[in-house]
Amino acid sequence: MTDLQAETTPRNHADALSADQLTAAVHAITDRARLASRELGRATRAHKDRVLLAIAEALVARRDVVLAANRTDVERGRASGTSDYLLDRLRLDAPRIDRLAEALAQLAALPDPVGTAVRAETLPNGLRLRQVRVPLGVVAAIYEARPNVTVDIAGLALKSGNAVILRGGSAAAATNAALVGIIRDTLGDHGLPDDAVLTIDEFGREGARVLMEARGRIDVLIPRGGRDLIQSVVTTARVPVIETGEGNVHILLDESADEEMAIDILLNAKTQRPSVCNTVETLLVHSRSRAAAGVLAALLRAGVVLHVDDRSRALLPEGADAPTATEDDWGREYMQLDLAVRTVDTVDEALQHIRRWSTGHSEAIITNNLASSEEFVAGVDSAAVLVNASTRFVDGGELGLGAEVGISTQKMHARGPMGLAELTTTKWIVQGEGQIRR
Amino acid sequence: MTDLQAETTPRNHADALSADQLTAAVHAITDRARLASRELGRATRAHKDRVLLAIAEALVARRDVVLAANRTDVERGRASGTSDYLLDRLRLDAPRIDRLAEALAQLAALPDPVGTAVRAETLPNGLRLRQVRVPLGVVAAIYEARPNVTVDIAGLALKSGNAVILRGGSAAAATNAALVGIIRDTLGDHGLPDDAVLTIDEFGREGARVLMEARGRIDVLIPRGGRDLIQSVVTTARVPVIETGEGNVHILLDESADEEMAIDILLNAKTQRPSVCNTVETLLVHSRSRAAAGVLAALLRAGVVLHVDDRSRALLPEGADAPTATEDDWGREYMQLDLAVRTVDTVDEALQHIRRWSTGHSEAIITNNLASSEEFVAGVDSAAVLVNASTRFVDGGELGLGAEVGISTQKMHARGPMGLAELTTTKWIVQGEGQIRR
Repeated sequence: MTDLQAETTPRNHADALSADQLTAAVHAITDRARLASRELGRATRAHKDRVLLAIAEALVARRDVVLAANRTDVERGRASGTSDYLLDRLRLDAPRIDRLAEALAQLAALPDPVGTAVRAETLPNGLRLRQVRVPLGVVAAIYEARPNVTVDIAGLALKSGNAVILRGGSAAAATNAALVGIIRDTLGDHGLPDDAVLTIDEFGREGARVLMEARGRIDVLIPRGGRDLIQSVVTTARVPVIETGEGNVHILLDESADEEMAIDILLNAKTQRPSVCNTVETLLVHSRSRAAAGVLAALLRAGVVLHVDDRSRALLPEGADAPTATEDDWGREYMQLDLAVRTVDTVDEALQHIRRWSTGHSEAIITNNLASSEEFVAGVDSAAVLVNASTRFVDGGELGLGAEVGISTQKMHARGPMGLAELTTTKWIVQGEGQIRR
Repeated sequence: MTDLQAETTPRNHADALSADQLTAAVHAITDRARLASRELGRATRAHKDRVLLAIAEALVARRDVVLAANRTDVERGRASGTSDYLLDRLRLDAPRIDRLAEALAQLAALPDPVGTAVRAETLPNGLRLRQVRVPLGVVAAIYEARPNVTVDIAGLALKSGNAVILRGGSAAAATNAALVGIIRDTLGDHGLPDDAVLTIDEFGREGARVLMEARGRIDVLIPRGGRDLIQSVVTTARVPVIETGEGNVHILLDESADEEMAIDILLNAKTQRPSVCNTVETLLVHSRSRAAAGVLAALLRAGVVLHVDDRSRALLPEGADAPTATEDDWGREYMQLDLAVRTVDTVDEALQHIRRWSTGHSEAIITNNLASSEEFVAGVDSAAVLVNASTRFVDGGELGLGAEVGISTQKMHARGPMGLAELTTTKWIVQGEGQIRR
């Protein structure tokens, strides 16, 4: 098994257990989650929403407990040489806790997908047929040391009627334990099973492995984090996984692109929030684009490091400092102010580059040519394709889904921004009065 | 790897290749399928339907070629001691070929899911948003020696715009080669890529293993066949699989069930077509049901062998011959005129039995009690749950889906009867005129 996440607390519960005991202990957790999921799956929307609001209140009321636990994690991280960037993701403060509580309140205000009929009809033989959304059952999440994900995933699971088993990064163990404790107390106090939210953090990396192999015990596993985490989960797991968030996103600056529009879109797509998955990582420049030089100059002025191929270098302002792109650049998700730039001669050449290097997240074209636009939209095989708009719009909130579970880059079950409905499956209900098949 | 299917032709192309060569050869097939899928994915419905009808005509016109190949397979099977039951599934005759052609014509008459918008709206910022169905891309199917599946899956894949890679049972190798040849010829003659339908039969069992591990090359793998085949695929595959068809189906005869209705439903669910997945395999009898003795007597008269627990034995007519059920019987999918029978005291006890033994396909209750009906519908976690209707209705054709790809017993992507739409994924298309995110 590859390194799932840096274990800054190598000694944990798992060390004292044999492999069989560890498996039994993790399976006991999945059994508890399964039992809880049956009760939670039948809870009314009103009941679930009351509990979400109560958790939001409890987080604020018990903020000091969370912050004290978080200080332990941050200090331990700092002592072991964790980078400032990772420490910042790990750190909670009062305003961040308020925002987590606010997000739970917003979740409570969203419609409940459970019970929605996706099909309902009466067949010619009188059978009443309904296909209704039901919770998946037991959802698991494996993520990095970001305590906000603990609250986020627990809230989404509760709202959609699923029990959830969490495996956060060990670097956030104390914070996650405090958060899970508050959530479980609140569930119990408000008549929902506390086992609807469980953690296997105490079982360490080996426990995560058992979870990933627990076929039939976990209905879906959602990895949340960087490429290494996701690839490690995808290749290890024997349970159904929804792959999310890897975004090697391309924008094609077509021959006919308007320069002003192109500058607006590129600056937005690259610089507004470089560390997220819908940010652009490669700009493909049509060799006859008249907007290209202006766009590249604007990016340089904005502090973007351009990794250029030989033909694109000719478009740069004189004396501009830009590294030469290698094959490695085409495959990189920089997630910072870097952008690979390649010149192509046709839309088809751009499509070939995208097919070779894309992670299937989002790609955009900036063009004023209808045929180019249609060729691009038809030829891109990614979750989202955009024409004359920033790739930053590929986000559940922006596209009107309310809460976002993640951006699926796979084709099965969910593709692109995932809302609460993607945490459900369906059940066919057929009611008759003695009908038999002829 | 477990035994995927009896290889009656142990010598095949794969024997001459090293492991690396075999992997390269199978990957070359997936590459050809991928290329073909891009072209097929853009074909219009009219074009695909013309080709489906042309394949139907070609099958009838070239019937003699198919029947000659089939005779080879059947004679080889008989010589190697294949059972009459398997020989019957392998055998084609003129009427069977006519029915395959007829099924293709019916498929041509169905709507095309590709291009259907599942969401379409204009956002407040003016972005036009559409989420449209697109083909998955490359579908693979692994199935047993039933040549009709070759035509069936190829037709479904074509109609939904997917390229398909087939791996049929080696016992049907000659017939499948003849059928695939006719289909590929017709594709080429009518302006669609012949590589939209490919087979890896020549690469034997090891080739199937390479296919199942070809992550990123196969968008979905559909196993079609009995439990052993499906379980073997599910546990071996590293590509996305849709699990279909395993049906350990239960009917609960509730306290208040009407005897006449119960007899009709049980006879239909058990005897109409015992070898299919929606046939009932276990009858749970409420201990206070007054209909139980009559129902069991009717099943015995119809030639059904009842495997009874001790309490149910007391309900049998005097002198009736019935084996005693063991734990083994609760887990069996007999697929013949056998039925396990167990007495329970409550609906909840029935639900516990179902949770323990069901494959998640279909369960039914026969009742006149509204509370029992609701408890059962809410408590069953299977793809389909029926009230006072035969489980034989759980079928794509009966429930109005037109063509049926299979009955999914998993929760992800598709659950229950699958139609053409379940062979698609979606693509988000966002069109603007320079919008950026604020």
